[in-house]
Amino acid sequence: MAIHRFVPSVYYNTIGSHPPVLHIASGDTVQTTTVDAHGRDANGEVVAQRPNPQTGPFAIEGAEPGDTLAVRFDRLRPSRRRGWTRTSLAPNVVDPAFVPNLAQDDALAWWDVDLDAWTATLVEPETRLGRLSLPLAPFHGCFGVAPPIGQAIATSTSSTHGGNMDYRGFREGVTVYLPVAVPGALFFLGDGHAVQGDGEISGTGVEISFDVEFTVRLIKGKTIGWPRAEDDACLMAVGNARPLDQALQHATTEMARWLEEDYGLDLLSTALLLSQCVRYDVGNVYDPAYTVVCRVEKRWLPIAI
Amino acid sequence: MAIHRFVPSVYYNTIGSHPPVLHIASGDTVQTTTVDAHGRDANGEVVAQRPNPQTGPFAIEGAEPGDTLAVRFDRLRPSRRRGWTRTSLAPNVVDPAFVPNLAQDDALAWWDVDLDAWTATLVEPETRLGRLSLPLAPFHGCFGVAPPIGQAIATSTSSTHGGNMDYRGFREGVTVYLPVAVPGALFFLGDGHAVQGDGEISGTGVEISFDVEFTVRLIKGKTIGWPRAEDDACLMAVGNARPLDQALQHATTEMARWLEEDYGLDLLSTALLLSQCVRYDVGNVYDPAYTVVCRVEKRWLPIAI
Amino acid sequence: MAIHRFVPSVYYNTIGSHPPVLHIASGDTVQTTTVDAHGRDANGEVVAQRPNPQTGPFAIEGAEPGDTLAVRFDRLRPSRRRGWTRTSLAPNVVDPAFVPNLAQDDALAWWDVDLDAWTATLVEPETRLGRLSLPLAPFHGCFGVAPPIGQAIATSTSSTHGGNMDYRGFREGVTVYLPVAVPGALFFLGDGHAVQGDGEISGTGVEISFDVEFTVRLIKGKTIGWPRAEDDACLMAVGNARPLDQALQHATTEMARWLEEDYGLDLLSTALLLSQCVRYDVGNVYDPAYTVVCRVEKRWLPIAI
Amino acid sequence: MAIHRFVPSVYYNTIGSHPPVLHIASGDTVQTTTVDAHGRDANGEVVAQRPNPQTGPFAIEGAEPGDTLAVRFDRLRPSRRRGWTRTSLAPNVVDPAFVPNLAQDDALAWWDVDLDAWTATLVEPETRLGRLSLPLAPFHGCFGVAPPIGQAIATSTSSTHGGNMDYRGFREGVTVYLPVAVPGALFFLGDGHAVQGDGEISGTGVEISFDVEFTVRLIKGKTIGWPRAEDDACLMAVGNARPLDQALQHATTEMARWLEEDYGLDLLSTALLLSQCVRYDVGNVYDPAYTVVCRVEKRWLPIAI
Repeated sequence: MAIHRFVPSVYYNTIGSHPPVLHIASGDTVQTTTVDAHGRDANGEVVAQRPNPQTGPFAIEGAEPGDTLAVRFDRLRPSRRRGWTRTSLAPNVVDPAFVPNLAQDDALAWWDVDLDAWTATLVEPETRLGRLSLPLAPFHGCFGVAPPIGQAIATSTSSTHGGNMDYRGFREGVTVYLPVAVPGALFFLGDGHAVQGDGEISGTGVEISFDVEFTVRLIKGKTIGWPRAEDDACLMAVGNARPLDQALQHATTEMARWLEEDYGLDLLSTALLLSQCVRYDVGNVYDPAYTVVCRVEKRWLPIAI
Repeated sequence: MAIHRFVPSVYYNTIGSHPPVLHIASGDTVQTTTVDAHGRDANGEVVAQRPNPQTGPFAIEGAEPGDTLAVRFDRLRPSRRRGWTRTSLAPNVVDPAFVPNLAQDDALAWWDVDLDAWTATLVEPETRLGRLSLPLAPFHGCFGVAPPIGQAIATSTSSTHGGNMDYRGFREGVTVYLPVAVPGALFFLGDGHAVQGDGEISGTGVEISFDVEFTVRLIKGKTIGWPRAEDDACLMAVGNARPLDQALQHATTEMARWLEEDYGLDLLSTALLLSQCVRYDVGNVYDPAYTVVCRVEKRWLPIAI
Repeated sequence: MAIHRFVPSVYYNTIGSHPPVLHIASGDTVQTTTVDAHGRDANGEVVAQRPNPQTGPFAIEGAEPGDTLAVRFDRLRPSRRRGWTRTSLAPNVVDPAFVPNLAQDDALAWWDVDLDAWTATLVEPETRLGRLSLPLAPFHGCFGVAPPIGQAIATSTSSTHGGNMDYRGFREGVTVYLPVAVPGALFFLGDGHAVQGDGEISGTGVEISFDVEFTVRLIKGKTIGWPRAEDDACLMAVGNARPLDQALQHATTEMARWLEEDYGLDLLSTALLLSQCVRYDVGNVYDPAYTVVCRVEKRWLPIAI
Repeated sequence: MAIHRFVPSVYYNTIGSHPPVLHIASGDTVQTTTVDAHGRDANGEVVAQRPNPQTGPFAIEGAEPGDTLAVRFDRLRPSRRRGWTRTSLAPNVVDPAFVPNLAQDDALAWWDVDLDAWTATLVEPETRLGRLSLPLAPFHGCFGVAPPIGQAIATSTSSTHGGNMDYRGFREGVTVYLPVAVPGALFFLGDGHAVQGDGEISGTGVEISFDVEFTVRLIKGKTIGWPRAEDDACLMAVGNARPLDQALQHATTEMARWLEEDYGLDLLSTALLLSQCVRYDVGNVYDPAYTVVCRVEKRWLPIAI
């Protein structure tokens, strides 16, 4: 149950079987930092390349393909005042015929991130919105474990291994579950967002560096198909694909499997439950793979088996 | 500002230019009833044919193509105790390879809908869920106005005119806006659900007959592209299409237009706002057209112009 | 086996249960005319409204829901010299980020259609293509039978009843099969194209009025799910939906059913055959529903049963 | 202009920046072999792992990011008699509700591949198809160059770098163009098919080992976005994505760029040409990314610039 303080000196733009930066054990906690999507650290210095440079990988002792890695996000905090976003909607989130109305430039907006006030406030440019000040809701847009068969997957997309899911539900206090595909699992994380709407439809949340603390737990012999997450209130199963319809299929199927494995629900029970209780949350709709989260409140479930 | 009590004797399975059952004026309120998706009324008698038989159409005096019809759902209440749902997930909401696991029969489940307790409780069949008792959240799965060029669109699908959207956000207290395409607008409604999860993924909410009260308001010369809705907290713009990606495009574009028209937001302001604040809700993912709702909280908006 | 010469005086913009313009018997042949997509006849006069005005409906004696209507296109000929097309690619067929490059105007191009030379030649505007002269390949972009439950479906889209499929394979000599959903079947046709690329990606083929001759045959008690077509060389099964993936699913499934019903192929045989021999043709990718055709050469099939 | 005879001893299951097996120059020809999708060589021995093990990578001297690599397939020949296919349609190519009808087992069928007769003949199992004997049409289902930013992309999918496209148009005599993303380009190829229908809808063509000869040519400073191909008759531009709609968008956009760059066509000319002449071919519809090819006959084009 060690606590590791880790200062990264290398960052990766793919999630793959890169040399571990730290070996840790199940139960260990890591305190570290992540840079923003453009590679800027807490001082605003560029120390890594785009896109979405990742801290890690962290190797977990004893992890083997077919296991599940649980990662609890103990603490996720922006580590500087200045965040940024893009200023145009992505062409793929509006009607094709509406695209010519979108701004064609690549200007950035700047936000003041105030941990005391717990707000992100639009500073520049001036807009019709006046002083738009949003409550912070920090989360990592991109994290995951090394995928199978030697793949190295760009941090601009997502798949069964996790990746760039941009789901605002992966917030402090949530435990995520990832399918181990290589020895050591190799966990990466980065792309902190101080706040973000559903879909990351400008291609950005309020992009910022993070101080992060997380705790890993290895679940031997438990095999999952897609990332899952859990907090006190909810179970969340993730699907990453295009179109959204397919992401939704993956997420729903993964939830059905979860409910059977851990709660003993047959498909009749699952159908009756989900059809009246399910919530679908929309993660990233900007990248090559989109993200849908199938969420169900635990209060409707029987005791876990 | 008349109040009309209307007892339906005819029901339609398409939304089209059928003869009006009642002529009303802008500002008028209608109290009426709807039957369930299988045509059963408050007594459980089959009085109409499948699918989703509609009460109406109500003709609004002076409504012309290019206007907008606002309909406030003043009161939406189940009118009997017994609701029903299907008992299998739809094949299109799970992975193709998982489909053979789904139940192939067409059995129904029965729910007790208790307005005093404000709950829907699963009565039959017995499942691993025990006594699943959900808070009521009544809404109309299907409503709309007659579409243009003489179309009659099945109540099993949706489009710009509304239709079978199955969005649980269309609840009591919400005002919906519909694009008038024919003289008199011709408003229909039906397919009441006592409660429903996102997506209507078994093809059913808790299906039940309704007592309903609604108030219409005609907005002359205001033209919208897709259904919209509003309550004290939120604006909601709807897109109906497949895949979900396209429904999301329609909904986002319609919201951008709304924010420009009524709140004076240019696309820079809209991009900054939506990318950090938008919520995407998933309506129907069962029918030929899927529904996505683009929702934004009013507290982030400037004063309407 | 009568031959009917029919001169239309009314045109429809929906395919639905409109009053028949002519009653015919199985085996009868009809010689008639169709106007172009903008309602212009052989003289260039506007005699009907947009979109895709249809000649018909023709009621076939004895046709009942659950039957199949076979229509052989005996002769499909442009009936004037002047055809037209749009001049821009549709926004939905290019990358979203490429859309701003497309022409935003709605200009038309003009083509000279020469039956003797059997060519369509671009006349105006002048382009880098020089004198582009294409071999004629006439077909009806839109045809179908009245859909079930009283629907009236716009001629700008397609579904199980047929509609605006814009598939260049529906040419002279081909027999199409349509699922009868109402008494009399009610067959419509229109939207003649002198030539067209796959997808109708500008929203137009070379649009022109037609002289047409077709022969109907009623197949009692034969039920199909989607339009089918056949000529000496091939079987073709149609799917109409978005995305193309779903249209392809419908078309493949319909072909599998056809091969079982008429050729006695079990799914093992069908899988082996289609996976090595199938051709997928792309029809309309412009309208709300896209079209995919699953095509297989008859030479690979056993004798029909 | 050297001719290299290369005997592979290592195979890769990802396309990425692996150590080159051979360095060659622009203009050089390589004669080599590939194993089948299950790693079996010309003797039927398993010498490599699934999926789709690739021969290579071949490093091309002087190739740098931003260049284009042209590869002419001089000779593509099955190198043994015994080919195999799967025996069930993939669940994703039929209607979701039809999936339970599909065979759930994973049996293989065996085909006799006869280069003299130029046929592939179904040997086992016995089916209703009798002695199904198809003309050979050999091509590589999977080939490509190393992708950017250190990615290693599984040979079971495709993207801008090429990959598992399963397009039967990539046959002997065709020159393919690939976007160079890393120094040396790093060309891989494998997954030979003796014959295959559109879509590879059982997940297999007639899978077999190949003797292959190809000639590379480096086009310095020419940058392309997606794979392209060309033979005497046609230009082909490729899009790889899901859904097919998006693959079609990529392919159409890439063709529009090609026609502008090499043939001087403005978008007006391109729109008029493609909308009346384009052919869309369907490649892989089995893998995570689908393939659409936008094809146009050269006879309609002006002289290349």
